[in-house]
Amino acid sequence: MALIVQKYGGTSVGDLNRIQNVAHRVQKTRREGNEVVVVVSAMAGETDRLIQLCHQACDSPGLREYDCLISTGEQVSAALLAITLQSMGVPAKSFLGPQVRIITDSAFSMARIQNVEVSRLRKELKAGVIPVVTGFQGMDKKGDITTLGRGGSDTTGVALAAALKADVCEIYTDVEGVYTTDPNICAEARKLGRISYDEMLELASLGAKVLQIRSVEFAKKYNVPIHVRSSFTEKSGTWVVKEDEKMERVLVSGVTLNKSEARITVVRVPDKPGIASKIFSPISDANIVVDMIIQNTSADGSTDLTFTVPKVDMKKALKLVKKTAEEIEAQEVLADENIAKISIVGAGMRSHSGVASKMFTALSKENINILMISTSEIKISCVIEAKYGELAARVLHQAFGLEKGERKKEA
Amino acid sequence: MALIVQKYGGTSVGDLNRIQNVAHRVQKTRREGNEVVVVVSAMAGETDRLIQLCHQACDSPGLREYDCLISTGEQVSAALLAITLQSMGVPAKSFLGPQVRIITDSAFSMARIQNVEVSRLRKELKAGVIPVVTGFQGMDKKGDITTLGRGGSDTTGVALAAALKADVCEIYTDVEGVYTTDPNICAEARKLGRISYDEMLELASLGAKVLQIRSVEFAKKYNVPIHVRSSFTEKSGTWVVKEDEKMERVLVSGVTLNKSEARITVVRVPDKPGIASKIFSPISDANIVVDMIIQNTSADGSTDLTFTVPKVDMKKALKLVKKTAEEIEAQEVLADENIAKISIVGAGMRSHSGVASKMFTALSKENINILMISTSEIKISCVIEAKYGELAARVLHQAFGLEKGERKKEA
Repeated sequence: MALIVQKYGGTSVGDLNRIQNVAHRVQKTRREGNEVVVVVSAMAGETDRLIQLCHQACDSPGLREYDCLISTGEQVSAALLAITLQSMGVPAKSFLGPQVRIITDSAFSMARIQNVEVSRLRKELKAGVIPVVTGFQGMDKKGDITTLGRGGSDTTGVALAAALKADVCEIYTDVEGVYTTDPNICAEARKLGRISYDEMLELASLGAKVLQIRSVEFAKKYNVPIHVRSSFTEKSGTWVVKEDEKMERVLVSGVTLNKSEARITVVRVPDKPGIASKIFSPISDANIVVDMIIQNTSADGSTDLTFTVPKVDMKKALKLVKKTAEEIEAQEVLADENIAKISIVGAGMRSHSGVASKMFTALSKENINILMISTSEIKISCVIEAKYGELAARVLHQAFGLEKGERKKEA
Repeated sequence: MALIVQKYGGTSVGDLNRIQNVAHRVQKTRREGNEVVVVVSAMAGETDRLIQLCHQACDSPGLREYDCLISTGEQVSAALLAITLQSMGVPAKSFLGPQVRIITDSAFSMARIQNVEVSRLRKELKAGVIPVVTGFQGMDKKGDITTLGRGGSDTTGVALAAALKADVCEIYTDVEGVYTTDPNICAEARKLGRISYDEMLELASLGAKVLQIRSVEFAKKYNVPIHVRSSFTEKSGTWVVKEDEKMERVLVSGVTLNKSEARITVVRVPDKPGIASKIFSPISDANIVVDMIIQNTSADGSTDLTFTVPKVDMKKALKLVKKTAEEIEAQEVLADENIAKISIVGAGMRSHSGVASKMFTALSKENINILMISTSEIKISCVIEAKYGELAARVLHQAFGLEKGERKKEA
C-alpha cells in the first residue's frame, strides 16, 4: 500500500464532468489499495475571473485582500470534488490550506511555505477518509490567508507529499508529461520518461510551464518523486526524480525556447569598480528581474555590458539605464526586442565536454548567429535573432538525437 | 463617537458600483467620527449560483462540504469591499468568520453562534482600520467552516455588535424598513419607526423576510438596538429595540399574510392519552416543522385534530399521518392546500382585551370564514381560505388604523 498525493490542475477540474472524471481516478487509486491525499487548483478560468473582478475594483489592490479574494477559487473546487466523491460512496472531506496548517511567510500573493502540520490529515487517512486539500493557499502566523503565486498548487502538492512522506506526488495536468522540446515547434518532440530535479529546474526556469519552479526545489530538498501526467489518459507521464549514480545519464534532456526577453546593451562603459552595481541597483529596486548578464574583458579601459530583461519591463528598464549611462558617461544604450533564448539542458553535461561546441556548430551550419552565451553546470543558453528561434530548436533537437526513443549515453 | 456595526445585504453589494456606494457610506460614517465594523453578505445571486453548482454535483451533498463551498460568496464580497475602501484611502481589512473566531456549533448549514472573540477586531479598530467581516459563516471547535442558514449575515452583524458592545447594528437592505404589512398587498402600508424585539420576532416568524429570526433573538438577549434601513437612500428606517415602559405601546403593529402552509385534519381520533405523540413523532422525525395545532375538546370519546405544515412537506407529512391514522383507527385524514394564515402582531395586546374580537368582527364583515385560530401573548393568527388572504390583510390593516401616521395607544 502506497501513500499517493495527487494534484489536479485547473483544466483537470474545469467543469463538473471533469471533476467527476477526477473523482473516478481517485476512487480507482484507492481501490488499488493506496492511501490518497488530493490537492486541487481552481476550476480553469476562475482565478482569472477573480483577478479581473479585483482589478475592476482597484488598479493596485492591497495584496492581503487580493489573496483573500482569489483563494476562493480552490475552496470551490475542493468542496465540489469532495461532494462528488461522497456521492460515489467514497468518504472524502475538503480542507483549506489554513485548516491543514500550511504555514507560510507573509509575502502575500507570492508566499513561501514554511511549515506543514499533517496531524489532521493523518487522522483523516487513518479513518479511511480522502482529504481534498485546496492548493495555492496557506496562512501566515497572524492567521491571514496567503497565496503561493501562479502554479502554487504544485508546491502545495509536493509540500504535503514531503510532510506526509508520501511515496509519490502525482501532478495531473493537460499534457502527458515533460517533453524534449515544445511539440508545437518540433514535431519530433518526445515525452521524457525520467528527468532529474536539476534538469527539471533548468527546464522550468527556461520557460517550460509544466511545473512551478518552487515545487521542484521543494521536491529536490525533500526527495519527493514527482510524476507529471495527464488526467485525460491512463498513460504514464514523466518522473522527476533524484539524480542517481546508476541512472543512465543523458547528455541533453531537452531544448527550450524563450521569446519573452529583450536585450539591453550599454556601449563603452568605463571599466571601473562599482559600475555594474550602479547600473543594476536601480533595476533591481524597480523589481525587474535581470536574466543573462554579459561583460567582456576590457581592451581599452572601456567595455560593453549586455543583459536581458522581460519584454514587459523593457521600457521601464531602458529609462533607468539611460539615466545611469549619462551619470557614468557611457557612450550609448541600445535595446533589442527581437531576440530569442535557445537552451539545452542535460545532467550529462557535468562530466562531458564538447556539448557546447556541438551546439554552436549545429547553429552555425544554419547560419544562425549567436549574440550572447551563458552557461550553468547542466545548461547552455544562446541568445539569437528571434526569427531563428523555432529553427534553432528543431536543429538542436535533431543534433542531440532527442527524437530517438533510446537515450544517448555519455561517453 | 459611536461604535457602529453596519451589515450590508446581497443587493447592497450586488455589483462593483454598489460596492462603491457601500464604501462611500462607510467612509461617511467614519468621517462623522464613528468607529465602524462592516459585515457583508455574498453578492446578490452568488450564493444561489454556488448552491446550484453544488446540487449539480450531487442531489444531497454532505453539509460540511456544502458550507465550505457556499461560504466563498461572502469571502469574495468582503475582499472586494476592503479593496474598494483602500482605493479610496480608507484603511480597511477583510476578515473571515473563522479569523475573528466566530465559534459555532457543528450543525452545518444552520449552525448557531456560541461565542465571538473580538480581540482582533478591537486591535484593528484601535489602529484606525475598518474591519470588513464576512457574514453568514463561522467555525466549529474542530476548525471546520460552518454557515448560519439563510439570512445568517444578519445574525453575524448582531452577534458582533453584541460582543463589541456597539451602539447600534445597522442592517442595510433593499427596503426602507419594516412595514405595517406587505406594501404589495396593501397600498396603505406604512413604515414603522420603532418596533420591539418581541413584535419583530412575531413578524419575522410570520413571514416578513426583513431580518433573520435568530438575529432578533440575539439582539433581544444582548439588548442590541437594530436599525433596519435601505442602502439606497439616506432616510431613517425602522428601529428594533427593547420594549420600554415609557414607550408608547402600540395595540397592533403589523399584519402579516403567509400562504406557504397547508392544513391536515385527522377526523375522529380516539381521545386517549398518547395519541398526539403517536401522530407527531413520525412527522418530527422527518424534520417537518408543524406550525399550528388545534384539538377540540372531545364530545363522544373522539376528536378532530388539525395542524399545519409547510406546503413543500405536505405530501410527505400526509403519507406519515395516514399510516398512523390506520394504526390508531381514526376515521380519515383530510388535506387542504388552499389556506392562508393572517396574523396581527402588537405588544399592546399583552394588556388589552378586545383585540381578538375586533379581528374576528372585521373578518366576518367581509364574510371571511375562520378555519383555525391560534394566539400568543402578542399575536393572533387565523387560518382562512387562501383566496381571501389579501382582502383580509387590507381589512385588518384598516380596522386597526395602521395606515395612520399617529399610533393608536392602548386604552
